[in-house]
Amino acid sequence: MKSGLKFLVAAKRCEIAALRELALTSVLVNVTGRLIHGLQRERGLSNLHIGSQGARFADVRARQIAECRQIEAELRTCFDSLDTESARVGHGARLFSRIAYALHGLDALAGLRERVDAFAWTTRQATDAYVRLIAGLLAVVFEAADSASDPEVSRLLVAMFNFMQGKEFAGQERAVGSALFASGRAEASEQQRLLHLIESQERCLQVFVEFANPKAVDLWTASQASATLAELERMRRVLCTAAAGAALNVQLSQAWFECCSQRIDRMKGVEDRLALDLLRTCEAKISAAQAELDAYQSFQTTPAREADALSFFNGAPLAAAPPDASGFGGAPQGYGLQLERSILELVQEQAHRLQTMSEELDTVRASLNERKVIERAKGLLMAHRQLSEEDAHKTMRQMAMNQNRRLIEVAEAVLAMADVLPERPR
Amino acid sequence: MKSGLKFLVAAKRCEIAALRELALTSVLVNVTGRLIHGLQRERGLSNLHIGSQGARFADVRARQIAECRQIEAELRTCFDSLDTESARVGHGARLFSRIAYALHGLDALAGLRERVDAFAWTTRQATDAYVRLIAGLLAVVFEAADSASDPEVSRLLVAMFNFMQGKEFAGQERAVGSALFASGRAEASEQQRLLHLIESQERCLQVFVEFANPKAVDLWTASQASATLAELERMRRVLCTAAAGAALNVQLSQAWFECCSQRIDRMKGVEDRLALDLLRTCEAKISAAQAELDAYQSFQTTPAREADALSFFNGAPLAAAPPDASGFGGAPQGYGLQLERSILELVQEQAHRLQTMSEELDTVRASLNERKVIERAKGLLMAHRQLSEEDAHKTMRQMAMNQNRRLIEVAEAVLAMADVLPERPR
Repeated sequence: MKSGLKFLVAAKRCEIAALRELALTSVLVNVTGRLIHGLQRERGLSNLHIGSQGARFADVRARQIAECRQIEAELRTCFDSLDTESARVGHGARLFSRIAYALHGLDALAGLRERVDAFAWTTRQATDAYVRLIAGLLAVVFEAADSASDPEVSRLLVAMFNFMQGKEFAGQERAVGSALFASGRAEASEQQRLLHLIESQERCLQVFVEFANPKAVDLWTASQASATLAELERMRRVLCTAAAGAALNVQLSQAWFECCSQRIDRMKGVEDRLALDLLRTCEAKISAAQAELDAYQSFQTTPAREADALSFFNGAPLAAAPPDASGFGGAPQGYGLQLERSILELVQEQAHRLQTMSEELDTVRASLNERKVIERAKGLLMAHRQLSEEDAHKTMRQMAMNQNRRLIEVAEAVLAMADVLPERPR
Repeated sequence: MKSGLKFLVAAKRCEIAALRELALTSVLVNVTGRLIHGLQRERGLSNLHIGSQGARFADVRARQIAECRQIEAELRTCFDSLDTESARVGHGARLFSRIAYALHGLDALAGLRERVDAFAWTTRQATDAYVRLIAGLLAVVFEAADSASDPEVSRLLVAMFNFMQGKEFAGQERAVGSALFASGRAEASEQQRLLHLIESQERCLQVFVEFANPKAVDLWTASQASATLAELERMRRVLCTAAAGAALNVQLSQAWFECCSQRIDRMKGVEDRLALDLLRTCEAKISAAQAELDAYQSFQTTPAREADALSFFNGAPLAAAPPDASGFGGAPQGYGLQLERSILELVQEQAHRLQTMSEELDTVRASLNERKVIERAKGLLMAHRQLSEEDAHKTMRQMAMNQNRRLIEVAEAVLAMADVLPERPR
């Protein structure tokens, strides 16, 4: 018959297995981040390529594509190494489903590149395709953050996901700006889109600052304090304030691309640091849990004695009870008692710790849930009022300002109205 | 290299594994419920035994103990059959930790019974010991409800947990009432306790009604509409309105016990029905998921073709696209295309379904989280203001009434104050 100790050991083993899986997921997140970074650059270069009708950037784009192919192969190897056979319980279903979707995107990449080569798509079409592809990859990272069972690791993953998402908005900003400059003409809808991307970026980076380690935040702040940022803001102003239809300096396209790229590459440096922190945290936690497991296993399982067992009913810490009150006076029994008592204490400590962890986790996850709720509300508005994503977001933000409420409250109100909204027109 | 389809299949396998585990957990919950039922009866009989100083109920108690021993053996076998070796990811750690604690309680049961045999404990002490033991078993059920990954199953488990918890309050009411009648004298603190138990019972049953299947609610309503309930309410009135110190009719102890028992046994009937529903739901879901898996596996994995792949970037349903628009005219390719397209559709459907499930799950879990928050706030008040559980609950309820807020809101406010409360006195 299995004892309480046996289940205590099993619980600890499950914890370690979950941490090991998190460490593997961290590696996956890191490689995914590298591919996203490469694709972001490829997207910007593709826009410059289309915008200049192939007159420029062909070589640098070709080199970028070669680099992306290499990282893609690495990521596919990473996916292949996942244990898809043993049908793990837990969040496996959602993670694998996201990977399946991301793989479809990667399968479509060659076709996308051919379309760009042939100038068959506008910059907007090409950008949208890359955005969708990268969103599929980011969804894998989001799922990883959502599945973490350790609150500290979950915090790091939430910080990292938001940083990566913020960086993706920065990448979209680069692509949209590149296309605008390359076209040589200001266009109101694209300017609007640019403003939306800048705001979305800032929102993500706020969440990052809230959840990241202070050192990572310092690194981020330090990397921001440079001349590049001022130059970026100057060019943002040029782009966003130009009257619709006004001419833009085509020559600035490369300067814009390089300025954005410098900033994004620095963001990648911060992201790499986050990935390293994540992996180290997982490893430290695995070691600590392993040490606890070893301690548990060094206990001899002794048959429960009545006096030990009755300690279950005492609320007070058991160490406080005088040994002779147990009715067993001898030293050997006394020792046995001590062990039994310690096991009960361990069980209580462990249960308490898991409870606390689960509460902390709920707090961290609340930020992910807010994101889900806002995205759902946005999707609902897009479907029912035929709005673009930017307009849906703008509508909700306006409602929040008018009603002096938080964005999440407005999103919840929108969803609460879902049932009374008319059927989605088809 | 693994394809998207492979991960889709892996995701479905994970879902099936999670459902299988839920089915096993359902069996565990059912046996746990049976042991709780037996221990509840044993608790009431033990109080009658102590209250009558062994003059009565010795035989029936002995028979009840024998029955409990048998179910305990069954539950231990059930625990033993759990896979503690493979270190499952997911909620294993918390479930096993709860089981370790519950096992310590069961190990202590023999000692508890000896204390009752020897009249070494008061009825209050004995009741408290049984309450703690049963709380440990109910925590296993709570954990099972909290770990369910399917929203429908989670609803059923939430309904079942609340019903079991309500039944436990009914059982405590029986024990406290039995002790009061058997002592022959009304006592203010115990009368207060009785009122608290009646209220807690009703709160749990409300949650049950909210989450259970309509048929289970009907069964519960029908089982309530009987003469027993009127008789119970009459005796409740006698018990709760007697002036402190006034004599109670000792002869009524058996009538009280039997009246409560009839009601509790009927509750057990409803609980059994809930357990059956749970198991059937799990089985139906496993069959459905298995059929989907078979359908997935019947697809041939064909190498992705450009035109198929590009469909990734089209938001519109793919079936609407005319086949010749793909650039492949021939029938065989057309067939291949159809398959590929269908796989992407499946991936999107699956991702959407998992997303919806996760949102529904959040909604169901909210009720479990409310419970956790209220329990934590109660614990905080108990520790910081040296209150009993009843008084802590009464304080919060009073705050809610005074401020016209929900109990959960008051609990959240109490927890928000945690940091500014003085250190717990020791």
